[in-house]
Amino acid sequence: MPDADCVFCRILAGTEEASFVYRDERVAAFMDIASVNPGHLLVVPVKHAARLSELDPAAGARMFEVAHEAAAVLGRAGLKCEGVNLFLADGAAAGQDVLHVHLHVFPRSRGDGFGLRLPPGYGASPGRAELDRIAERIRSGLQ
Amino acid sequence: MPDADCVFCRILAGTEEASFVYRDERVAAFMDIASVNPGHLLVVPVKHAARLSELDPAAGARMFEVAHEAAAVLGRAGLKCEGVNLFLADGAAAGQDVLHVHLHVFPRSRGDGFGLRLPPGYGASPGRAELDRIAERIRSGLQ
Repeated sequence: MPDADCVFCRILAGTEEASFVYRDERVAAFMDIASVNPGHLLVVPVKHAARLSELDPAAGARMFEVAHEAAAVLGRAGLKCEGVNLFLADGAAAGQDVLHVHLHVFPRSRGDGFGLRLPPGYGASPGRAELDRIAERIRSGLQ
Repeated sequence: MPDADCVFCRILAGTEEASFVYRDERVAAFMDIASVNPGHLLVVPVKHAARLSELDPAAGARMFEVAHEAAAVLGRAGLKCEGVNLFLADGAAAGQDVLHVHLHVFPRSRGDGFGLRLPPGYGASPGRAELDRIAERIRSGLQ
């Protein structure tokens, strides 16, 4: 159900402006108004889902398909594009700003100023025993 | 074709150690040895694809499905997980380190030290006319 308080639902309903690049029954894509780099777009489910936990898995798979196609197009659309990042934040603690699932797709080039800020201590492996222990917990949840 | 020079192909072939959480015909998932946070895992295609441009779209869609399921599991696997990020780097300019497509899935919590470093000037909208112009170029490529 569209949520009138959700800016992406208003965009999808046509009551808020956006620059669309794609739309089908399941997903849509439009330009992010605050671009990391020119060409930065968002792929969203048409049906409101605030979080990944509410997102239809088929819509999620279709989001990735469209992001995958868009990534290819960015490289030949005359934009500065030496690489592409896909990024999704689920939950405020992960940096999710708009509570309607969205997958960022943006072109990258060397020295463009974007990057990841990694936690202190990043790069030190937890060790195989600890990784195996965590993997076992995740694996059993995926069954 | 597996690439002997590719560490992920060696992991998939069983000649290099990894802590697996999932595997089917198309995709596999295992723990990242350099974790952003405990629970950080990678989803990869079984068939070697260095870049998104070489990746079978169906394998890409399946990667997202598995990442989506894994994100749900992270929240109930006893790990510190208040949110989740998905991240993919395609190309060295985008931060791709291993030349075998991989989708990062990692749990997040407030104050964990991870974040995005945004380019100078980020947040200033390019303006609707410019967004429409770029959208038109991308849209025509997606047809």
